[in-house]
Amino acid sequence: MTEATEVGSTSGPGRTAGSDVAFLTDFAALSAFGVTDRGGVHRETATDADAAQRAWFGRWLADRGFAVAYDRVGNQFGLLERTPGAPWVLVGSHLDSQPFAGRFDGAYGVLAAAHAADRLARRRGTGANLAVVNWLNEEGSRFEPSMMGSAVFAGGLDREAALDTRDGAGVRLGDRLAELGQLGDDDVLTLDDVAGYAEIHIEQGRELEDAGRTVGLVEATWAARKYDLTVTGEQSHTGSTVMADRRDALLGASELVVLARELTERLSTADSPLHTSVSRLTVAPNSPVTVAREVRMNLDLRSPDEDLLERADTLLHERIPAISEHARVEVGVSGSHAWGVRPFPAAGVALARRCAEDLGLSHRTMLTIAGHDSVNLNAHVPTIMLFVPSEQGISHNERESTADDDVCAGVDLLTAVLDRLAAGDPVR
Amino acid sequence: MTEATEVGSTSGPGRTAGSDVAFLTDFAALSAFGVTDRGGVHRETATDADAAQRAWFGRWLADRGFAVAYDRVGNQFGLLERTPGAPWVLVGSHLDSQPFAGRFDGAYGVLAAAHAADRLARRRGTGANLAVVNWLNEEGSRFEPSMMGSAVFAGGLDREAALDTRDGAGVRLGDRLAELGQLGDDDVLTLDDVAGYAEIHIEQGRELEDAGRTVGLVEATWAARKYDLTVTGEQSHTGSTVMADRRDALLGASELVVLARELTERLSTADSPLHTSVSRLTVAPNSPVTVAREVRMNLDLRSPDEDLLERADTLLHERIPAISEHARVEVGVSGSHAWGVRPFPAAGVALARRCAEDLGLSHRTMLTIAGHDSVNLNAHVPTIMLFVPSEQGISHNERESTADDDVCAGVDLLTAVLDRLAAGDPVR
Repeated sequence: MTEATEVGSTSGPGRTAGSDVAFLTDFAALSAFGVTDRGGVHRETATDADAAQRAWFGRWLADRGFAVAYDRVGNQFGLLERTPGAPWVLVGSHLDSQPFAGRFDGAYGVLAAAHAADRLARRRGTGANLAVVNWLNEEGSRFEPSMMGSAVFAGGLDREAALDTRDGAGVRLGDRLAELGQLGDDDVLTLDDVAGYAEIHIEQGRELEDAGRTVGLVEATWAARKYDLTVTGEQSHTGSTVMADRRDALLGASELVVLARELTERLSTADSPLHTSVSRLTVAPNSPVTVAREVRMNLDLRSPDEDLLERADTLLHERIPAISEHARVEVGVSGSHAWGVRPFPAAGVALARRCAEDLGLSHRTMLTIAGHDSVNLNAHVPTIMLFVPSEQGISHNERESTADDDVCAGVDLLTAVLDRLAAGDPVR
Repeated sequence: MTEATEVGSTSGPGRTAGSDVAFLTDFAALSAFGVTDRGGVHRETATDADAAQRAWFGRWLADRGFAVAYDRVGNQFGLLERTPGAPWVLVGSHLDSQPFAGRFDGAYGVLAAAHAADRLARRRGTGANLAVVNWLNEEGSRFEPSMMGSAVFAGGLDREAALDTRDGAGVRLGDRLAELGQLGDDDVLTLDDVAGYAEIHIEQGRELEDAGRTVGLVEATWAARKYDLTVTGEQSHTGSTVMADRRDALLGASELVVLARELTERLSTADSPLHTSVSRLTVAPNSPVTVAREVRMNLDLRSPDEDLLERADTLLHERIPAISEHARVEVGVSGSHAWGVRPFPAAGVALARRCAEDLGLSHRTMLTIAGHDSVNLNAHVPTIMLFVPSEQGISHNERESTADDDVCAGVDLLTAVLDRLAAGDPVR
């Protein structure tokens, strides 16, 4: 960024070196909310840090002429009505974070959306109305499930059930949002108002970096199966109980964690990868001298290959009885979520590709492994999902990073995509 | 208990069917503090239930002429000074419980001690002074370490360090005890005042039941090595992170749990058993979509065979590097406690055997696998440790039980042992 050149006039709408600086400056301000000692952010849903950031973001939008409002589940909208009665094009992501996470996940996409809409507004164009959205609770670490606000908006989750969710300390989400003054009393927008949705996000993997490309055009979501497991044993004394008498829920749970990794090692190939994980596990009573009576845990399987996922699911269920017998525990399995490979509209990918080429940005089509709010919208409205690179693929980590050039290129691409969506270019 | 027969006059001091009823009635009252839906107790240290029970027990003692006081770490004493200036014989156990645990563990021994001392007092005998003690925090589930109050009394743990301990919610033990009015401002008794210590406890195993004996005369404690482990990985996204890039602390921890059990399966024999366990394990950040960056866990090895324990320790340490490499984690191991096979004085065992035989109680010598407050006292003063059977060996469980006849026989035995200790019979 050595001088202010008006590249926007030919290669895209409204980009200047000055707009890059404006974005990076705003992003630095945004990253101060919940900042950690090591430069990450710790900003779970409806914490003080999250609430303060939403308030800041609301003021940012209002200062630029957006009408700002929370809907009845706490999604935050900034509306720019350019043509009364015209459809709305929605663009956004989420500002909440995982615990001790990175600055870019979600927050980048929300600020990029706000800057893109603001750039279009400054051009005083017509076409569809523009709505920026900061979805409530995409991360799901404090209040489950994840992607909550967009799921309610898209009709996949009951609003009251979402507001009734409680965190580990028993705090009810709806009460907390009301206390913060971040829960509205109408819908702001409904699905029927929305003509299209766009979202940009960091990749959270290293495919773009490895391939040396600047932007990713997301064609589909990996298939996933997510399970909630309950392992039930029986409390006993860790010292005096004869080993053969033990019914150790933590032993059973640990064997399940090891099994999840073994599934990857047995089934995954370069062409058909399988990702598995157990990342949440709680032990009761979790005392130093009492054998665990119960462990609750998650277990996820993800793959771009639905047949492979089916085989992994089968093998998982085949292996559970041996674990159950060895540890003398009961293993309860419930499927909390499952989805197949879900394509984004091909016309939307083509639209994004044209924009990338106009801007001279190297690109590739790819899949998203992580879930995003766009996945909820994609089931109902024309949706475009874009990626910028994550350095070394690191995410959900304080070291998460994306180069400034990539950050700014992504905002340009989103602006161009939003411009065409608002102009009514076909997405499907 | 069909009629009131005076068996105490010949076979032991002061037992009557009436005294059995009195004990069982008091024990029922004691078991109401922190009672659970399934008939167990949930009465961790310095909870409301624990505090209410201590208050009740203090009134019980005071009503019978004991001088009641808390020492400077919150141990509760009831003193019966029969001969001013004479040494004190101490008898007791602990009233706190594990979460959702049984009625007998600890509480039985405290009430048995109080009844035994009261029976002797009613006989208006002379000899040593009698002190009943309810040790603070034997269980260590809320505030670590376990056996805290007796460790401070015996000089093995710094009093201020103990009071500075905080529970999972950040509550400081010393503050909580002061708030409850259960922290004294002097020592009440010191180790130098004590001529001998006796404790009775449920076995928590099934050796007595399997052998058909009523009481156990404890000759020694199993050797033990207790470790605190910290497994360090790195946060990343559970979906999008390539499997080969993951540094999954929960995978490493789970492999350690499985290893602990494998040590038993490889090394334990009928003659030289090895008990192993991991029972406390906490995951950070414990989110559904973030690979764990850190797991903290305990790991215990126990055996009556010190050589076997040494081999188990060696094998554990030999196997850790492979786990560390496979899960790409660092494993930090610190030894929190370790002790060898610790004998109780043979003269004390012989004294207890004579008492059991005088009472016509079947008995056997045995080891204790679980730690008890007596282990702390045994290092410094003549100490006698007694067991009554645990039905099916079940303990740290709401179903923990001991038959009424065994319960009452144990009180008789403790009374007889206390009588001889107070009379100055040699223990070592």
